[in-house]
Amino acid sequence: MNDQLRITGITVTPVAFRDPPLLNAVGVHEPYALRAIVEITTDQGLTGLGETYADEGHLRRLDRAARALTGMDVYALGAMYQRIAAGLADDTGADGSGLTGLITSSSTVDRVFSPFEVACLDIQGKAVGRPVSDLLGGAVRDEVPFSAYLFYKWAAHPGAEPDPWGEALDADAIVAQARRMIDAYGFTAIKLKGGVLPPEEEIEAVRALRAEFPSHPLRLDPNAAWSVPTSLKVATELDGVLEYLEDPTPGQKGMAEVARQSPMPLATNMCVVAFDELAPGVAQDAVQVVLSDHHYWGGLHRSKLLSGICETFGLGLSMHSNSHLGISLAAMTHLAAATPHLSYACDTHWPWKDEDVIQPGVFAFADGAVRVPRTPGLGIELDRDALARLHEQYLACGLRNRDDTGYMQRLHPGYRLRSPRW
Amino acid sequence: MNDQLRITGITVTPVAFRDPPLLNAVGVHEPYALRAIVEITTDQGLTGLGETYADEGHLRRLDRAARALTGMDVYALGAMYQRIAAGLADDTGADGSGLTGLITSSSTVDRVFSPFEVACLDIQGKAVGRPVSDLLGGAVRDEVPFSAYLFYKWAAHPGAEPDPWGEALDADAIVAQARRMIDAYGFTAIKLKGGVLPPEEEIEAVRALRAEFPSHPLRLDPNAAWSVPTSLKVATELDGVLEYLEDPTPGQKGMAEVARQSPMPLATNMCVVAFDELAPGVAQDAVQVVLSDHHYWGGLHRSKLLSGICETFGLGLSMHSNSHLGISLAAMTHLAAATPHLSYACDTHWPWKDEDVIQPGVFAFADGAVRVPRTPGLGIELDRDALARLHEQYLACGLRNRDDTGYMQRLHPGYRLRSPRW
Repeated sequence: MNDQLRITGITVTPVAFRDPPLLNAVGVHEPYALRAIVEITTDQGLTGLGETYADEGHLRRLDRAARALTGMDVYALGAMYQRIAAGLADDTGADGSGLTGLITSSSTVDRVFSPFEVACLDIQGKAVGRPVSDLLGGAVRDEVPFSAYLFYKWAAHPGAEPDPWGEALDADAIVAQARRMIDAYGFTAIKLKGGVLPPEEEIEAVRALRAEFPSHPLRLDPNAAWSVPTSLKVATELDGVLEYLEDPTPGQKGMAEVARQSPMPLATNMCVVAFDELAPGVAQDAVQVVLSDHHYWGGLHRSKLLSGICETFGLGLSMHSNSHLGISLAAMTHLAAATPHLSYACDTHWPWKDEDVIQPGVFAFADGAVRVPRTPGLGIELDRDALARLHEQYLACGLRNRDDTGYMQRLHPGYRLRSPRW
Repeated sequence: MNDQLRITGITVTPVAFRDPPLLNAVGVHEPYALRAIVEITTDQGLTGLGETYADEGHLRRLDRAARALTGMDVYALGAMYQRIAAGLADDTGADGSGLTGLITSSSTVDRVFSPFEVACLDIQGKAVGRPVSDLLGGAVRDEVPFSAYLFYKWAAHPGAEPDPWGEALDADAIVAQARRMIDAYGFTAIKLKGGVLPPEEEIEAVRALRAEFPSHPLRLDPNAAWSVPTSLKVATELDGVLEYLEDPTPGQKGMAEVARQSPMPLATNMCVVAFDELAPGVAQDAVQVVLSDHHYWGGLHRSKLLSGICETFGLGLSMHSNSHLGISLAAMTHLAAATPHLSYACDTHWPWKDEDVIQPGVFAFADGAVRVPRTPGLGIELDRDALARLHEQYLACGLRNRDDTGYMQRLHPGYRLRSPRW
């Protein structure tokens, strides 16, 4: 009998991978995106992987949690959560979450717990010879559809060579970006990151996408760049065009005001990003779709809890993504496969990266979807050479905290953070 | 690799076990309580157990579901739920749930799915050599406290020999019953089933319990026998005495009215008994504590979902019990152990039965609690002789649906069902 499967060691390795100059409401992506790779080893030789943010404050918390969890049984997820919560009881989380100020109110405990839970589920799956999706209730779909994630962007980081995607600063370029991404990946839904250009130009881009892709569900996400009146104006103009409008305006109160008159559902990964924001969000009917993200919703089981809450309270469920690597894609895929209520194509930044820490070949996109791995655990393997290389890149690049705004301000000193901006 | 663990057969065996004449707001327990024992066999020889109601309509649905699930993988819980839901799409559930009209609005799909999910988790646990609690996130407590469950009762079923507990129709007898039960089991919390005598007499009984057991948390459950004014009168008189007051009055609207002025929290297993009743219950603040019950909340994973919802929306969580056997106690114990938010002692009818279908010795009460089994699966084994005997008893006893009211009316033709009665 397999009565204990004890954690004998946890390593947390920060890595940096190349990231294009993608624009958003708070600035622009820096030349490298940061992630932390969590690897758990056990007394029976099984190992598990997790992936999370790598900002300095988060890394410090991960290290403290890693020490607290060493020696525990990989099935003791509830006790691990309690132990991490106890260790963070005096932590205000004020030194940053690696989410660029966009998801400020997410739970520190849930963010810290998440990669350890994923790694433990990876190990549990290997122990029983089952994919992680089976540990979450079993896959209800064989493949998980993702959405094309379009960005306004510069041709290159200043001083660097242009990336293969080129500049995208108007509707034509966005349509071209979509065409290229859909040709390569087959995506059947499209999301445009907005909040970058004046709303009229973003409306024009969405309309151009609709003309070019008449049957793709479309989404627009300005990351709270608009006032309530601007939000309502855009919503009205895009009536019948958008599947949902994501975070048009800041805060639950403003969102509720927009929602009352918006012709399409409002989605969020900004005003409902933690369990303690659900009750007020539901009471105000502030949003109609929650974008889950296991990285800040406390792992895969708690993301399933979020799904159950959304289903119970009549909310839709989609999935959010930050820039991520293959461990996160694996976790997102297993979670989405085992979440019946997740009926939208999930967000992913996958096409924007050209480096990874996992052995290639597991995730091939066809028709915009990836097949759910049926091999044990997450179904992926670490590429130790790549991990070492991306860790070296982390050490060398000098970036230690995600700071889209600071980067933009170094390049354009007049740039100011404003929400709403229009 | 253990890629499939297919269900090769499911047997559903109705059983009857002796039940004392326990009184409640809708009548009196008949001489036998009915349960259905679900046994799942797999292609690898592992078997799993579940326990549920045995009313005729429920048995028909179980048989249909058993056919639909045969051939499926025991990890495919989400797909099983969908398949059962599809099979019940045209089923109004109108022919009875085995819950005596007290839990009429629970979900037919959740009731039917539950024993199959429990049996599959039993098999999953055996496959990996882990207790079911580990599959639910791991035990956060080594033992699960239960509550003494007191009943007004007759000395004997008419025409039968008196049972060992004797008559209990006043405060003194209730105190004596509590003393006897606590001496035998060590319970540290006490629940009195009310709604039987006029409210003043039940208040007197609760006060007598308080005098005799000054530090035991006390609960009173009249099963919606009272009007709103009566509920408020009782609540006021028992201010500072009751831990919570359970279902004083029918319906969420009435409960919300009582809750607004009640000095103690209101609990329910009547007005919030299904996921679709949570949103209106929360919106009205109708209850402060939900009594979970995996038999009608859709199994152990969905009961954990209920727990997460309660935690998220600021509701307490306790656990309800109908008359049950050892398979249910095992499932309740694993669930409670792995549910951090379940901070009340759980209800159980355990002391009222003297027969079972499991091999004895697993569950010994000490200080009112049972140790959580650490053996694989539910940690119990079927006693096939006992199962055969209790099935014969089912066939012989003639009871086919729970009918506390009909039984009372056969004995007392003037008895009428009324809610509220006072």
